[in-house]
Amino acid sequence: MTKDNVTAGFLIIGNEILSGRTIDKNLNFLATHLTDAGINLTEVRVVPDIEDMIIEGVNELRSRYDYVFTSGGIGPTHDDITSESIAKAFGVKNVLNKEAEDILRNHYGIKVNEARLKMAKIPETATLLDNPISSAPGFHIENVFVMAGIPEIFQAMYFAATKELKTGKKMISKETRVALVESQIAHDLEELQKEYQDAVAMGSYPFKGGTALVFRGIDEKKVNQAHDRMIKKVKQIDPNALQ
Amino acid sequence: MTKDNVTAGFLIIGNEILSGRTIDKNLNFLATHLTDAGINLTEVRVVPDIEDMIIEGVNELRSRYDYVFTSGGIGPTHDDITSESIAKAFGVKNVLNKEAEDILRNHYGIKVNEARLKMAKIPETATLLDNPISSAPGFHIENVFVMAGIPEIFQAMYFAATKELKTGKKMISKETRVALVESQIAHDLEELQKEYQDAVAMGSYPFKGGTALVFRGIDEKKVNQAHDRMIKKVKQIDPNALQ
Repeated sequence: MTKDNVTAGFLIIGNEILSGRTIDKNLNFLATHLTDAGINLTEVRVVPDIEDMIIEGVNELRSRYDYVFTSGGIGPTHDDITSESIAKAFGVKNVLNKEAEDILRNHYGIKVNEARLKMAKIPETATLLDNPISSAPGFHIENVFVMAGIPEIFQAMYFAATKELKTGKKMISKETRVALVESQIAHDLEELQKEYQDAVAMGSYPFKGGTALVFRGIDEKKVNQAHDRMIKKVKQIDPNALQ
Repeated sequence: MTKDNVTAGFLIIGNEILSGRTIDKNLNFLATHLTDAGINLTEVRVVPDIEDMIIEGVNELRSRYDYVFTSGGIGPTHDDITSESIAKAFGVKNVLNKEAEDILRNHYGIKVNEARLKMAKIPETATLLDNPISSAPGFHIENVFVMAGIPEIFQAMYFAATKELKTGKKMISKETRVALVESQIAHDLEELQKEYQDAVAMGSYPFKGGTALVFRGIDEKKVNQAHDRMIKKVKQIDPNALQ
């Protein structure tokens, strides 16, 4: 289903951006990718780790735009108050999500602790957004996508979120996880990217033990072709790299 | 004259930021310099070149914070609507400013034209902000500083604006990178944060291989004390965690 004008807002949450300690890298990524998807990013706000400001920001943006994305504040420490604040914005409880708990227990094994399990607490009506890099998931509640602040994870979660977005022209995305580190495939991927220029956007996202290769474009045939050619290269580098 | 908590908002005006065409470079500059000046940047908004959104943004921010800075939209073309919008936000006329006109006529000589003179139109109650780079001035109206989007000019105008700013008590920041993941220090950090409440803001920011611990506050002694106590805890968790 496509709509003429699909809109989005972006709420950047974090003292570190406002103090100048950290340079935001997510705004331009999101702006560029939403534009590619035919989604009109219309307003951005940056707010501190203050509950009232997060609640006000998300509530104003979600009432105005088709989609809202947030970045930051979903980690294990006391200053990560995004999940709790979003739950309050929606008037629901912030609860331990069983699926998220399983993911974290599976990822951390016996090293799971209270701080880590805090990352499994999300608003009770939310569903998870996959995090292939460090496992702790983001989440999706109504038209709001709550994502990590670390750019690599923000980007991976954005690609997970795109599956659920209405866009003007449908973007095809094909992802394969390979047991090679990024530096092993960087050259081949770059050469292939040059051949496909704007037709297929190729991304690589490291996770523990490998790399997720993501191929995106409007032309499904080209996306599949580029993907299959890269997989062939991967097999040449290491026949056991496909899990 | 100093005040304990001087606050600021920043309104970034421009479709090019929201489409991803241009990467904003002014936010981090402003954040860093305001922090150095003891001014607390508390909220940022990015809005398109749409009059209603500029008016809403500047009116909300100026009512909340001691100062508001804006970037973008003060050039010579039809899509530069910032001056006109700010005038409307203050309910005053946007008029040809004689001083600004003289500056532009002096700079451009016979090459001055209608489009260039548009840059001399500012709200009638505003005063000029010097632009040593390309001459077309920014302006200052009540607690709002209207500045260019081009980073070099934005920066020059910021330094012109600082002459008129009350500065706050300088925020002391102490940062140490430790080879522990966030979940290992989350509990101790939270306990320590409770003890120092509003006196010291403690943040933790993961990077590959560790966590950056940031302690910020106005009272240098307390910042140092909190920092040193946390470092002691870190050493107890892992004597090799300090690199």
